[in-house]
Amino acid sequence: MRLTKKDLLGMKDLSIDEINLILDTAESFIEVSTREIKKVPTLRGKMIINLFMEPSTRTRTSFEIAGKRLSADTINISASTSSAVKGETLIDMARNLEAMNPDVIVIRHGASGAPHLLAKRIRQSVINAGDGAHEHPTQALLDMMTIKAKKGRIAGLKAAIVGDIAHSRVARSNIYGLTRMGAQVAVAGPATMLPRFIEQMGVTVHHRIEDAIRGADIIMMLRIQMEREHQNIFPSLREYAKYFGLNRKNIRLAKDDVLVMHPGPINRGIEIAPDIADGPASVILEQVTNGVAVRMALLYLLSGGKA
Amino acid sequence: MRLTKKDLLGMKDLSIDEINLILDTAESFIEVSTREIKKVPTLRGKMIINLFMEPSTRTRTSFEIAGKRLSADTINISASTSSAVKGETLIDMARNLEAMNPDVIVIRHGASGAPHLLAKRIRQSVINAGDGAHEHPTQALLDMMTIKAKKGRIAGLKAAIVGDIAHSRVARSNIYGLTRMGAQVAVAGPATMLPRFIEQMGVTVHHRIEDAIRGADIIMMLRIQMEREHQNIFPSLREYAKYFGLNRKNIRLAKDDVLVMHPGPINRGIEIAPDIADGPASVILEQVTNGVAVRMALLYLLSGGKA
Amino acid sequence: MRLTKKDLLGMKDLSIDEINLILDTAESFIEVSTREIKKVPTLRGKMIINLFMEPSTRTRTSFEIAGKRLSADTINISASTSSAVKGETLIDMARNLEAMNPDVIVIRHGASGAPHLLAKRIRQSVINAGDGAHEHPTQALLDMMTIKAKKGRIAGLKAAIVGDIAHSRVARSNIYGLTRMGAQVAVAGPATMLPRFIEQMGVTVHHRIEDAIRGADIIMMLRIQMEREHQNIFPSLREYAKYFGLNRKNIRLAKDDVLVMHPGPINRGIEIAPDIADGPASVILEQVTNGVAVRMALLYLLSGGKA
Repeated sequence: MRLTKKDLLGMKDLSIDEINLILDTAESFIEVSTREIKKVPTLRGKMIINLFMEPSTRTRTSFEIAGKRLSADTINISASTSSAVKGETLIDMARNLEAMNPDVIVIRHGASGAPHLLAKRIRQSVINAGDGAHEHPTQALLDMMTIKAKKGRIAGLKAAIVGDIAHSRVARSNIYGLTRMGAQVAVAGPATMLPRFIEQMGVTVHHRIEDAIRGADIIMMLRIQMEREHQNIFPSLREYAKYFGLNRKNIRLAKDDVLVMHPGPINRGIEIAPDIADGPASVILEQVTNGVAVRMALLYLLSGGKA
Repeated sequence: MRLTKKDLLGMKDLSIDEINLILDTAESFIEVSTREIKKVPTLRGKMIINLFMEPSTRTRTSFEIAGKRLSADTINISASTSSAVKGETLIDMARNLEAMNPDVIVIRHGASGAPHLLAKRIRQSVINAGDGAHEHPTQALLDMMTIKAKKGRIAGLKAAIVGDIAHSRVARSNIYGLTRMGAQVAVAGPATMLPRFIEQMGVTVHHRIEDAIRGADIIMMLRIQMEREHQNIFPSLREYAKYFGLNRKNIRLAKDDVLVMHPGPINRGIEIAPDIADGPASVILEQVTNGVAVRMALLYLLSGGKA
Repeated sequence: MRLTKKDLLGMKDLSIDEINLILDTAESFIEVSTREIKKVPTLRGKMIINLFMEPSTRTRTSFEIAGKRLSADTINISASTSSAVKGETLIDMARNLEAMNPDVIVIRHGASGAPHLLAKRIRQSVINAGDGAHEHPTQALLDMMTIKAKKGRIAGLKAAIVGDIAHSRVARSNIYGLTRMGAQVAVAGPATMLPRFIEQMGVTVHHRIEDAIRGADIIMMLRIQMEREHQNIFPSLREYAKYFGLNRKNIRLAKDDVLVMHPGPINRGIEIAPDIADGPASVILEQVTNGVAVRMALLYLLSGGKA
C-alpha cells in the first residue's frame, strides 16, 4: 500500500487507513536505529530541506537523523540565517527552494497554515513540522505509535490531554488523530487555556485535571510556555503546578497501567512532577525514539515508497 | 578542456573561453538535478567549506546542494557561530581552515576583496560567493547560463541593468561578463545609485529606466536594499517603484521576447511588479535552477575535472 | 589495543597507555587527510552529534570534518538554535538525544563538569570539547601529538604555559597530560591569572614570562580573553603584551629549537608577536591539522575500534 497524498499537513486530513499505513511503516523502521550500521540506502540521492522558521532542537534533529538514516541528503535552513531577514515572502522563498529540486521540504513556521500555503504552490512534498497553534502531525503520529506499541491498540482507549489546549498544536493534532482512531479524549486546563467550541472536536472538557485523568489509559501533559506567565493566562507557575500539574497523588485516579506522555521539552515540577516524568508510567523517551521512526516512515512514503 | 585557475574570484578575470567552459559544463550538469537519484559520485571524498560571513539562504543552500549532488562533504560556517566573534582575523581563520585540508572554500564576505586575500594565502581553491559591493561571479555565470539557454547566445544581445548599480556586486559581475561575451549593456538608476566613471566599464548610462530598457533583449532588475531607505540614497520606496520599477507598462518598451531577470530575493511591488515577476517573460526561477548547475560545474572544474 | 573507556572527559583520567594509544592511532589517521579521496568507510552508519552550547568555529569544524572523513553522519546543534532557549535542563536534552540513538555526543558547554554529568546519564560515548574553565582534552591531545611528532618524545621535555592559567581549560588539560607523560611544566601569568594551589598540579609557578620560558623546549601561549580587559584582571592589553607577550626578544631565552604553540584563535600583537606566530618555531597550524587526526582517532576508538 502507498500513501497517495503529496504532503503531510495535518492529522485532520488523514484517514484511518493512512494513519495505520504510517504507523505500520514506522514500526518496520524502528529496528534500523538499533543496528550496528544505522543506515539503509532507501532514499539515496534524495534531498530533504529542513526549513525551520522557529527555533527547535528536537524536531529538526529528529527529521535530520531520520533523513540521514535513509541515506538522504539533508539541508538545514533556520530563520536566523535565512533571507527572512531580507523581507522575502514565504512563498517566494519556497519557490526558490523548489527551483533547486529538493524532494521533500519539512517546514516549521510560527503562522498557522504556512505549510498548506507552501504545499499548494510547490510540486515537492511538504511535511508540517508544526505551524503556529494549528497542527503538529508528526508529534501526534509518534504519540499514537507509542500508544499502539504499549497498548496494542488505540480504539476504545481513554486519553486525557492537560494544559494549554488553546495554544497547543500538539493537542489539536492528537485530538484529530485519537478521535479518528476511536479513542475517547478528555481535555483539561485553566479556563483561559481552553478554546471556545472545543467540544465540537469530539472531546469532553474539564476544568480540573482530576476529572480528565480519572480512569485514563493515557495522560498527555502539555508544556507550559513559561514566557507567557505574565500575560495573565494563568496566575503563577506555582498555582499552575498545584492545580494542573501531574503528580504522584492525582495520577492514582488514572488506570494502574496508565501511560504518561509529554511532547517535551518538559518543565520539571510545573506541568509534571520529576518522579512522574522519570517514573515507570512515563513513555516520554520512547516517544522521542519513535519520532525518528515516524519521520523515516513519512519521508519514505512521501517519496513513493510502499509499506 | 580544463580550467587552469586555482580560484574563481570574479568575472573580471575570466576569458571568453573560460566562461564558455563553465557554461558548457554547467549545461551538462543540469540533468543531474532532474534524475530520480540526484547524485553523481564525481567529488566523493572532497570537502567543501561554505564560509558565510554575511547572512544568505539561497546562495549558501545552492552551493551546499551543488556539493552534495556531486557527493562532496559540505561544512557550513556562518558568521554568527564563527570565531569572528572572538576577533580572529580573516586570514588566520582561513589558514586554520586550510590546515584542516578541505578542497574548496566558498566565501561570502562583507568586505570587497576578502576572497582574493584568502586565495593568495591558502593553497585550496576559493570561490567568491559575493564580496561587499565588488563581485558575485557565480550569480553572473548563472545569469549568463540562463540567457544562453533561452536566447542561444549572448553576443549581440542588448541587456539593461536597473537599480542600485553603485552598491551591487551582481551588476558589476554581470557588466564584466556580458560585455566580455559581446553583449551591449545599458544601466539605469537614480543618480545616487550610479557610480562615477561607470561608463569606463563599457556600458551606457541612463537616468530613466525607460531609456535603458528600450529595445532590450534582457532586463536585469536589482534588489533594493530597503534598509537603506532612510540614508537619503533614494526618496521613498513609493517613488522608487514609480520611477525605477519594472511594470506592465514600461516593459512594452523592450523587445517582445525580452527576458526578465532578478537575482532575488525580490521586493514585490518595489523594483518589480508582481505580475511581471510571475509573468511569461520572467526567468527568475530558471536562474535559481541554473545556479545549482553553475556551482556544480565550478566545484567540478576547480577540483581538476575537465569538460 | 582498545580504549576501554566509554567517554573521553578529561586528561586527568587518562593513563600513559591510553594517551599513547590515542596518539598512535591519530598518527595513523593523519595520512587520510592528505589523500585524493579524503575518506575512509570506518564509521559508516554511525551518527555523531556535535552539541555546542558555546560558540566555536574551529573545534566544531574539526570534529565535523573528523566525523565525515570516517564516513560518519554528523548532526550539529548549537546553543542559539537549541531548546536551551526553552529552559530545558541539560540532562533532559541529553536523554532526548540519547533516545534518538546516536553513537557519540561531542559536547562543549560553559559549565565545568557538564560533559561528566552527561556521560553518567546516557549510554552513548561522550567527548568533552571544552567545559567551562575545567578541561579541553582533545586540545591537549593534539598539542601532545604535535610535540611528539616534532620532538620524538614528551618525557623529559621542559614546557612553559603562559597566560591566563586560572581561566584556561587548555592549560589544565595540558598540565595533566604533560606531567603524566613525564614533561616538566612551568606556568607564568599575572598574579590575578594564576589559580591558588596551582603548584599542587605538579608545575612550577612564575610571575614573569622570562622565568618560565628559560630553557624551554615548548612554549604554549594562551589566548587572552579580550572581553575581560575591563574586569581588572589585567591592567591593559598593552601592558599585558609588554610583560607577558612572547616576542623575538624573550623567545631567545628558550632553547634554540623551541616549539611555539597556541590553541588559537590568536590575538596578534597581544599574547604573541606576529613574527613569532608566523615564524619558524611556530607549529600553530600543525596543531590544527593534528586536531582533525586526534578527533578521528577518538571517534574511532570510542566506537570500538582498535589500534
